[in-house]
Amino acid sequence: MSINDLGIVKRTILRADRAAVDKLSRFGVATIHEAMGRVGLMKPYLRPIYTGAHVCGTAVTVLLQPGDNWMMHVAAEQLQPGDVVVAAVTADCTDGFFGDLLATSFRARGAVGLIIDAGVRDVKDLTAMTFPVFSRAVSAKGTIKATLGSVNIPVVCAGALVNPGDVVVADDDGVVVVPAAVAQQAADAAEARENNETVKRRRLAAGELGLDMYKMRESLAAAGLKYLD
Amino acid sequence: MSINDLGIVKRTILRADRAAVDKLSRFGVATIHEAMGRVGLMKPYLRPIYTGAHVCGTAVTVLLQPGDNWMMHVAAEQLQPGDVVVAAVTADCTDGFFGDLLATSFRARGAVGLIIDAGVRDVKDLTAMTFPVFSRAVSAKGTIKATLGSVNIPVVCAGALVNPGDVVVADDDGVVVVPAAVAQQAADAAEARENNETVKRRRLAAGELGLDMYKMRESLAAAGLKYLD
Amino acid sequence: MSINDLGIVKRTILRADRAAVDKLSRFGVATIHEAMGRVGLMKPYLRPIYTGAHVCGTAVTVLLQPGDNWMMHVAAEQLQPGDVVVAAVTADCTDGFFGDLLATSFRARGAVGLIIDAGVRDVKDLTAMTFPVFSRAVSAKGTIKATLGSVNIPVVCAGALVNPGDVVVADDDGVVVVPAAVAQQAADAAEARENNETVKRRRLAAGELGLDMYKMRESLAAAGLKYLD
Amino acid sequence: MSINDLGIVKRTILRADRAAVDKLSRFGVATIHEAMGRVGLMKPYLRPIYTGAHVCGTAVTVLLQPGDNWMMHVAAEQLQPGDVVVAAVTADCTDGFFGDLLATSFRARGAVGLIIDAGVRDVKDLTAMTFPVFSRAVSAKGTIKATLGSVNIPVVCAGALVNPGDVVVADDDGVVVVPAAVAQQAADAAEARENNETVKRRRLAAGELGLDMYKMRESLAAAGLKYLD
Amino acid sequence: MSINDLGIVKRTILRADRAAVDKLSRFGVATIHEAMGRVGLMKPYLRPIYTGAHVCGTAVTVLLQPGDNWMMHVAAEQLQPGDVVVAAVTADCTDGFFGDLLATSFRARGAVGLIIDAGVRDVKDLTAMTFPVFSRAVSAKGTIKATLGSVNIPVVCAGALVNPGDVVVADDDGVVVVPAAVAQQAADAAEARENNETVKRRRLAAGELGLDMYKMRESLAAAGLKYLD
Amino acid sequence: MSINDLGIVKRTILRADRAAVDKLSRFGVATIHEAMGRVGLMKPYLRPIYTGAHVCGTAVTVLLQPGDNWMMHVAAEQLQPGDVVVAAVTADCTDGFFGDLLATSFRARGAVGLIIDAGVRDVKDLTAMTFPVFSRAVSAKGTIKATLGSVNIPVVCAGALVNPGDVVVADDDGVVVVPAAVAQQAADAAEARENNETVKRRRLAAGELGLDMYKMRESLAAAGLKYLD
Repeated sequence: MSINDLGIVKRTILRADRAAVDKLSRFGVATIHEAMGRVGLMKPYLRPIYTGAHVCGTAVTVLLQPGDNWMMHVAAEQLQPGDVVVAAVTADCTDGFFGDLLATSFRARGAVGLIIDAGVRDVKDLTAMTFPVFSRAVSAKGTIKATLGSVNIPVVCAGALVNPGDVVVADDDGVVVVPAAVAQQAADAAEARENNETVKRRRLAAGELGLDMYKMRESLAAAGLKYLD
Repeated sequence: MSINDLGIVKRTILRADRAAVDKLSRFGVATIHEAMGRVGLMKPYLRPIYTGAHVCGTAVTVLLQPGDNWMMHVAAEQLQPGDVVVAAVTADCTDGFFGDLLATSFRARGAVGLIIDAGVRDVKDLTAMTFPVFSRAVSAKGTIKATLGSVNIPVVCAGALVNPGDVVVADDDGVVVVPAAVAQQAADAAEARENNETVKRRRLAAGELGLDMYKMRESLAAAGLKYLD
Repeated sequence: MSINDLGIVKRTILRADRAAVDKLSRFGVATIHEAMGRVGLMKPYLRPIYTGAHVCGTAVTVLLQPGDNWMMHVAAEQLQPGDVVVAAVTADCTDGFFGDLLATSFRARGAVGLIIDAGVRDVKDLTAMTFPVFSRAVSAKGTIKATLGSVNIPVVCAGALVNPGDVVVADDDGVVVVPAAVAQQAADAAEARENNETVKRRRLAAGELGLDMYKMRESLAAAGLKYLD
Repeated sequence: MSINDLGIVKRTILRADRAAVDKLSRFGVATIHEAMGRVGLMKPYLRPIYTGAHVCGTAVTVLLQPGDNWMMHVAAEQLQPGDVVVAAVTADCTDGFFGDLLATSFRARGAVGLIIDAGVRDVKDLTAMTFPVFSRAVSAKGTIKATLGSVNIPVVCAGALVNPGDVVVADDDGVVVVPAAVAQQAADAAEARENNETVKRRRLAAGELGLDMYKMRESLAAAGLKYLD
Repeated sequence: MSINDLGIVKRTILRADRAAVDKLSRFGVATIHEAMGRVGLMKPYLRPIYTGAHVCGTAVTVLLQPGDNWMMHVAAEQLQPGDVVVAAVTADCTDGFFGDLLATSFRARGAVGLIIDAGVRDVKDLTAMTFPVFSRAVSAKGTIKATLGSVNIPVVCAGALVNPGDVVVADDDGVVVVPAAVAQQAADAAEARENNETVKRRRLAAGELGLDMYKMRESLAAAGLKYLD
Repeated sequence: MSINDLGIVKRTILRADRAAVDKLSRFGVATIHEAMGRVGLMKPYLRPIYTGAHVCGTAVTVLLQPGDNWMMHVAAEQLQPGDVVVAAVTADCTDGFFGDLLATSFRARGAVGLIIDAGVRDVKDLTAMTFPVFSRAVSAKGTIKATLGSVNIPVVCAGALVNPGDVVVADDDGVVVVPAAVAQQAADAAEARENNETVKRRRLAAGELGLDMYKMRESLAAAGLKYLD
């Protein structure tokens, strides 16, 4: 183990099982996060650049330096079909690290989206391409290519640890990371939860109260809830 | 009066007069806020989850604990047709306290929208339902059901005091609270203001200057305004 | 030179050359900012009030006092066709300084948009008018008319210096200021950059890597980049 | 009830019982807030202008307009010995509404401190005077005197409702509001809690674990906590 | 005029008159800002790294790139006794651009302080040196030396325009910029204001109300202020 | 590997070598961060509760739920002399999770400090105890004990990954994490860097320019820097 993880490109990574990824793509971020026991979310300041953006794929991670997008080009070469680029920065930065040229390149390599804890630009073009991007900012500010970062090392992106090969799912509600080793288990749990919700939705729509459906009245009374007129 | 308002559900509240609520629903938030003398607004960080969301109704208030949405289910039972749920939290929190299941339940009880000083999720579904929600964040983060808050006590939501039964109006410009006792008066004042604006709009569109229409030139000169070439 | 620039209206300003403005209107903010050598951007917290808003024009500048929009009416009289109003405030403020009445007036005078380092309201109406506005906030909060500011003095708006007559271009990626004296040069450089990008986009779409197209491999190796399996 | 609470000065207010105020002054904000059942706190962005600032008194409330401190002078006349001025603003603002001249005036009238949801200045002088101030910002930005607010109406300050006459206590941990009607009850509860903590502190200092002292092991096990080696 | 101000060092700048600078050093930031007509302040997020820091000097300006402090070394050579370094960045950044080594170098060249719209580090050492620094953040994050900025061009620092040679004054209340051409006038106005305040302070301390001293009662009544019992 | 890391206490962790920890304690955070190749820092919003706070120890990690400090008591039992508690939360929260009682308990168990990505209270007492705490906020808001988190699992705290047993060093400049496996190497590199700085400091104090000492003139010229008079 070295003192410094900068300047490294890991070429061989273990991607999550494709069938698990495909199954996870059928569920929303909130459902998957709940199914995992309420863990794995990135911070809610990451937002889609257009309403309805959705992505589910295996993470190729990038660690960037502030104001420098050199490693995005290095990452492009490591992409395989179905990958999502997950980009972290060594310090808070809202510059525009990514635009339509890189999106064109990423898509040509098979990438299906980008999660970036920084800014992006050319959002009109990215939207026209329907290339899903979740970012902390939109900014026209350009970047340089001067300092090394790394590709495919573990990164902390918007508060969540992401290992290369993990499944990343993002939609209007946010971004969730599913470790590769539990992808199938998470997909199954999400499916179970979703089935369960369909029934609940019907009962609530019919006017049944959550108080009764979830049998909360007793525990609320035990906690001391008082009704006044 | 008790030292602690937690753990209380007030079942009987005095809702604002329905005719006044209906009349207020015809006006925008900016107009109502001006008509009231420039008071009653919540902080502008509350935003609609979809463009064009609009709601006007009588407040059922909820005080939540951070990361805990138990009282939302308690509130559901207190809802009557035309109510808007106004949810405050005892500390800043962006977790997703509300999603499509609760929206289904609230709608089944007659609620017409939600104002929440916290996060919500399932925004794609909520948008498809056209259930208007104004929140400080969107977040997939789930909540627990462990600690009591209260329903239908006065709450401070996004900087504004809301009493149960007050009228709450929200649109793309923000959220305004109209105390039940002045609802009719506020609606009348809003109508007068709106009529007045129609005339002004026509004159301005014809090229007349606000400087002349509002007769500002004299007061500007008195204040010392200097024109240079 | 006076100790205080408040209370002044400069009637005669030197607007950037119209042909240069027209040419700049064909390019995106990111392209122009890069073409100028990566300078001139306002802070990315300025956002369009509707997706797709775009504006390019000559700046009429306004310095406002917090919570006071008096000088917006003074500015209206100074507008000429093709102008963009650029409004700064002497302290941070998110109040709604601008709405559909002022937009009607500005448009009647020939203005093509507004950049404001503060809040605006009536965004539904402004959107229906397709009047492009870039602001730091949306807020229904009304303003007063009590204290002098200035019109057509140099202002700092969202971190950028704007002189009256400068070209201001704004789109979904942000807002860029082009000094009047370099407008033609910037337009030419933007055109050259755009032409260059068209070729690059085609090569990247065909699967060529930026690593090869930009000939980065050697400099990356020189910087010490290591590939691991 | 009027549609608008602006432009009002309430001369007669019911101040909390002096003995209760004096007793509350012996306890910290965290203790009082817990003793009240974990309610009544202002937002933590309010900070003392110097370390160790402490204040406990009866509230004289002020509602200010952004950038306008006119009502602070109106409030001065309403002050009685032992009062704390609690100042809210109708919109977020960090201008310096208060400095050493107003502090001199307030102190001459008997006021013991200021809580303000805005900025203050002359902090070096205020510190030399040991005049305790809790504010959201320090800013040299001056204010005007042009628009009416109110004195001694209920205000929302930093997220908390304050009625004139309520007890306000502030120290390094924050600011808590104790409604006048429960001041004695809150003081007694705070005393009980403090006595209780002295014993706990001694036991913890001796190495006893909270797990044992609070008898948490069983409930943790019931919740499913697992110990791994 | 060039399209791009990056990569330039202006060696000859016109510094404000030394006598005016010395006179300004006797007054606080709030006083100078008011004396100038309430203009010239930087944003209040700039804070001193230690309580009581005070600086008054002539500006040597630096435009930095995010995460890159190369130009700070270039600036050192341009310093003359009595200068204050004013550092802006082309994008928001909180990295630590400055520490005790640069402070040692700046002081050796005669500089009396630093104003920086970014982060600094080694604050314990800087405090021990009593080298006054006003920054937007404290951060240990190191910077690189790879990209050109400029020295002694006009910069926008924390929202204020600073020309090389301008007087910059900073204390616990904030930072104010006095254009070189009006330095003497501003110093005289500050002196007049300060003298005036001494008298007011004495009267207020004696219990006289601002309402009477400033003769506000009539204008308040005219504005409609109502006293209720 | 489980789908969910909540509800786990790891009793056996591998702490970094004591000699390496002791050596690291002699160096500042900025020096260590640079010596590691400019990595390992937590976000700069973590600040010491008192000036001059310093801590260096081995991490016992805690994952908390928002508004719930139950696991802090569980963590206390796992502490050994020389440990630093590193506390993360599953969602952003500024509540006061820690006060003087827990500090008393932690100290009795041998802990030397706390790093927490949330709020703390009783800061006056903690300061009197000289118990070093680095937090994102100070808040009197109390917490509950209702939901499980975990102890001694890898956590992301203020943007940095911390494994139990890692070395954590904090001072006025921020907080840095040194993985246990590279602690000795980092300490040696920090020592080398510090020795090197002593020489530089002396030369800079004597008036030598960084431009010459670091031999920057040639690279600046190559980059295109232009000197103008």
